[in-house]
Amino acid sequence: MSKKLKLGVFGLGSVGQGFYELLDQSKNPNLEIKKIVIKNPTKTRTIESSIFSTTPTDILDDPEIDIVVELIDDAATALEILKLSLQKRKPIVTANKKMLAENLEEIFWLQRKYDTPVLYEGAVCGSIPIIRNLEMHYAFDTLESFEGIFNGSTNYILTKMIDEKSNYEEALNKAQKLGFAESDPTLDVKGYDAKYKLAITIAHSFGCFVKPEHILNLGIDKISAHDIRYAKQQGCAIKLIAKAEKIGNKVFGIVAPTLVPVENPLASVKNEFNAINLIGASTGLQMLTGKGAGSLPTGLVVLSDVASLASGFKYSYPKITNDNPVVFETDALINVHVSFSEAGAIRLTDFEEFTGGYQGEDGHFMTGWIRIKKLAEWVDRNDLSVIVLGDTPFKVYESKKEQELSLA
Amino acid sequence: MSKKLKLGVFGLGSVGQGFYELLDQSKNPNLEIKKIVIKNPTKTRTIESSIFSTTPTDILDDPEIDIVVELIDDAATALEILKLSLQKRKPIVTANKKMLAENLEEIFWLQRKYDTPVLYEGAVCGSIPIIRNLEMHYAFDTLESFEGIFNGSTNYILTKMIDEKSNYEEALNKAQKLGFAESDPTLDVKGYDAKYKLAITIAHSFGCFVKPEHILNLGIDKISAHDIRYAKQQGCAIKLIAKAEKIGNKVFGIVAPTLVPVENPLASVKNEFNAINLIGASTGLQMLTGKGAGSLPTGLVVLSDVASLASGFKYSYPKITNDNPVVFETDALINVHVSFSEAGAIRLTDFEEFTGGYQGEDGHFMTGWIRIKKLAEWVDRNDLSVIVLGDTPFKVYESKKEQELSLA
Repeated sequence: MSKKLKLGVFGLGSVGQGFYELLDQSKNPNLEIKKIVIKNPTKTRTIESSIFSTTPTDILDDPEIDIVVELIDDAATALEILKLSLQKRKPIVTANKKMLAENLEEIFWLQRKYDTPVLYEGAVCGSIPIIRNLEMHYAFDTLESFEGIFNGSTNYILTKMIDEKSNYEEALNKAQKLGFAESDPTLDVKGYDAKYKLAITIAHSFGCFVKPEHILNLGIDKISAHDIRYAKQQGCAIKLIAKAEKIGNKVFGIVAPTLVPVENPLASVKNEFNAINLIGASTGLQMLTGKGAGSLPTGLVVLSDVASLASGFKYSYPKITNDNPVVFETDALINVHVSFSEAGAIRLTDFEEFTGGYQGEDGHFMTGWIRIKKLAEWVDRNDLSVIVLGDTPFKVYESKKEQELSLA
Repeated sequence: MSKKLKLGVFGLGSVGQGFYELLDQSKNPNLEIKKIVIKNPTKTRTIESSIFSTTPTDILDDPEIDIVVELIDDAATALEILKLSLQKRKPIVTANKKMLAENLEEIFWLQRKYDTPVLYEGAVCGSIPIIRNLEMHYAFDTLESFEGIFNGSTNYILTKMIDEKSNYEEALNKAQKLGFAESDPTLDVKGYDAKYKLAITIAHSFGCFVKPEHILNLGIDKISAHDIRYAKQQGCAIKLIAKAEKIGNKVFGIVAPTLVPVENPLASVKNEFNAINLIGASTGLQMLTGKGAGSLPTGLVVLSDVASLASGFKYSYPKITNDNPVVFETDALINVHVSFSEAGAIRLTDFEEFTGGYQGEDGHFMTGWIRIKKLAEWVDRNDLSVIVLGDTPFKVYESKKEQELSLA
C-alpha cells in the first residue's frame, strides 16, 4: 500500500459498523472512508454526518474513490452496485452471500471482462478464511470433498436442543433473543443461508458453478425428539451440514441435518461457531473453525479483503479450467434415516437400496440409499423427518434404464 | 504468473520429493525446475540425472533461475544459501524451522535490504496455513494469545500413551516404526521442534523477535503413569502445548506438557495431527487443524509458497512496528502441577503462590504458581515431572523487591 486509498461504503448495518470501527481503531494511514451511502438518512448515528449520502453515484461516479465496500442486505441492489462498480473499474468487497451464490458465474466473467477484482471472504462463514485458503493453499492439491457447519443460528439451536434438551421453539426463541437468529428465521432454519455459502465454496473447491436452486436444502425445523434420541443411541450429534464431493468430473452437494459421529471433530463444534473439514488428496484432513457471523468477526474479514485488494490480491479461481470441465449433478444417492408417524407415509420402493426399517414407541423409521430427487419431492411434507447418515459418501445415481443399457 | 519461472531446488529428502511430485502432477506450464542441488550424487534416483548437481553455484549464479527452494536439513548451510540467494535478488522458499527461528530478525532485515522476499509456511505445522492466516487475516485484529499442538511425533506418542495405555518407550518405538519420529527423537520429545515453530509464530502474531534459547521448553519424556491418571481425574488430556500470550507490550511463551480440559478442542486433536487455537480481540476463537508434517502435506505448502512468490506475495509482518515495541519476557508466573517421588525433592518456597500439595500412593505432588526461571533450573532433573495447568494465563512476575518498591 503505497498511496492512500479512498473507500466508498454501501450500508452501515451490523457488519458495516464492525468494519467502520475496526478501520477506525487500526489508525491505518493508507485507508480512508470517503463516503458511506445509506438508505435511511434520519437514523441517529454517532459518525460525523458529512460522510453520509443517500445517492449511490456519490460513490460510483467519484473518480477519487478507489475501492467499493458493499454491505447492504438487498441482493438485487447489491448486484447492481457490484456491476456498476466493476464497469467503473473499482475493485469491490462484498459479503452478500445470496447475491454471490445466485450470480457467481456472471461475476466471474465480469471480473475478467473489466479486469477488476471482487473479494468476498465475509460471505462464507464470517471470520473463517475459507475462500482465501482454497485459493492459495489448495491451488495445487486435489480437493476430494468438504463438509461444514455453515450456519451459526441453526448450530446454536441444535446445541440447545441436544445439550440442554430444549425443544425447537424454545431454542429458536433463545437464539432470537441473543441475536443469533433473525426475526424471520426461514433462511437459516430451512438451510438456504448454508446453501448460498455451499454454492460459493463449490466454485472455489471444484471449479464448477452451480445455481443455489439446483442444490437440495433440508432444514432443521422438522427434527423430532425421536431423531435426537436416535442420534444419541448411534453415538452421534445432529448438525446442519453443508457438504460436497467430487467423483470423477461430477460434483455432488446437499445441505441437510446429518448424523455426525462423535469422533468427527465437527460433532464438537457448538453454539454459534462454524467449521469446515476439507479432505485433500495430498494434505489429508484439514479443519478450520471460528465465528461464522457477527459485527466484528465479519467486519474484520471485510477489512482484511480491502487490505488484500490494496496489495494487489485477487481470486485466481485455480480450479476453473477449460479442459476437463467439472459439472454439478443435481441427483445422486444418499444414505438417510427417515422417521414418520403414520404407517404407510413412505414406501420401501422410495429407496433405491433399502437397508432397514422398524416401528418404535413413537413412530416408524426407515433407512437406506435414496435419490436426492426423491428427497426433493418431500421437502414440504410435515409428516416426516429426513436425516442424512454422516460419514457415508454420495453415490452416483444410474437409472434402471441406464443400468440395463450398460448391461446390453 | 505471466512468464515461465525457473526454480532451483536444494535438497531432495522427504519434503523435496513431495514438492517435486506435486509440481510434476500439476503440469503447471509456468513453473519448471531447472536444477536440483544434492549432497550425495551416488544415491539411486528416479528423476532424470541431468537435472542434478552438487555445486550450489549452479543455482545461485544462474541468472536464469528465478526462485530458490531450500529444503535441506542442515540449518547452518540453509542460512548460507538463504543469504546468498537474497544477495542475488532471488526470492526463496524454505521450510527450515531451526534456521528461521534462530535467525528470524536478521532474515527480516535482509528481506528489506535486498527487497527480496522469503516465504516459509512449511516451517510451521506442515500443511496448516498458519503464517499466511496471521499475515492476511489477523493484520487488523489484535491477537491476544495462541496455543497449539506444534509437533506431530509427540502428539502421536501421547495419544498412544493415553488412549492405548502404552508406556513412553513403547509409544516412541511405534512412532519411530511408522516414521512419525526420528531415530534421534531428542528435538521432538524435548520440545525443541515445537519451540522453533513457536518463535516464528510469535514474530508474526505479536511483532517481536525472540531467540529460541530464551523460551523454556519442557519435554514429554518425564510424563509418568501418575500424571496420566491425574489428568484423567481432572477431565483433561495431556498435550505438548506451545503457547504465547501478549499482556500490555510484553509477550510470554513456553513449550510444555499441559493439562488440556476436554472442552478445549485441542484435547481431541490426536495422533500426528497439529492444531492451533488463536484468540483475537474481534474474531474470538479460531482454530486450524491439519497434518503437521509429511512429504506431500509439507511439499504442497512449499509449492503453494512458490506460486505465491510468482504472484508477487510477500510477508508484510503487520505486527512489527517502530512505535510501541513489543518485547519477549523470559520470566513469568505459570500455574503447574509437579510430581516427584522423594519427599523434600522440591520445597514450598519454590512456588510464588502455593495452591496445594498431597502425598499419594505413588509419590508427592504440589501445585501452584511458579516462576519460569525456577522451572528452567529443573530442566535436567529426572526426579520430577512438571505439567502446566491449561486454561490459566501467564502472570507477570514482579520480584518481591519491585513489589516493595511499588508500595513505598
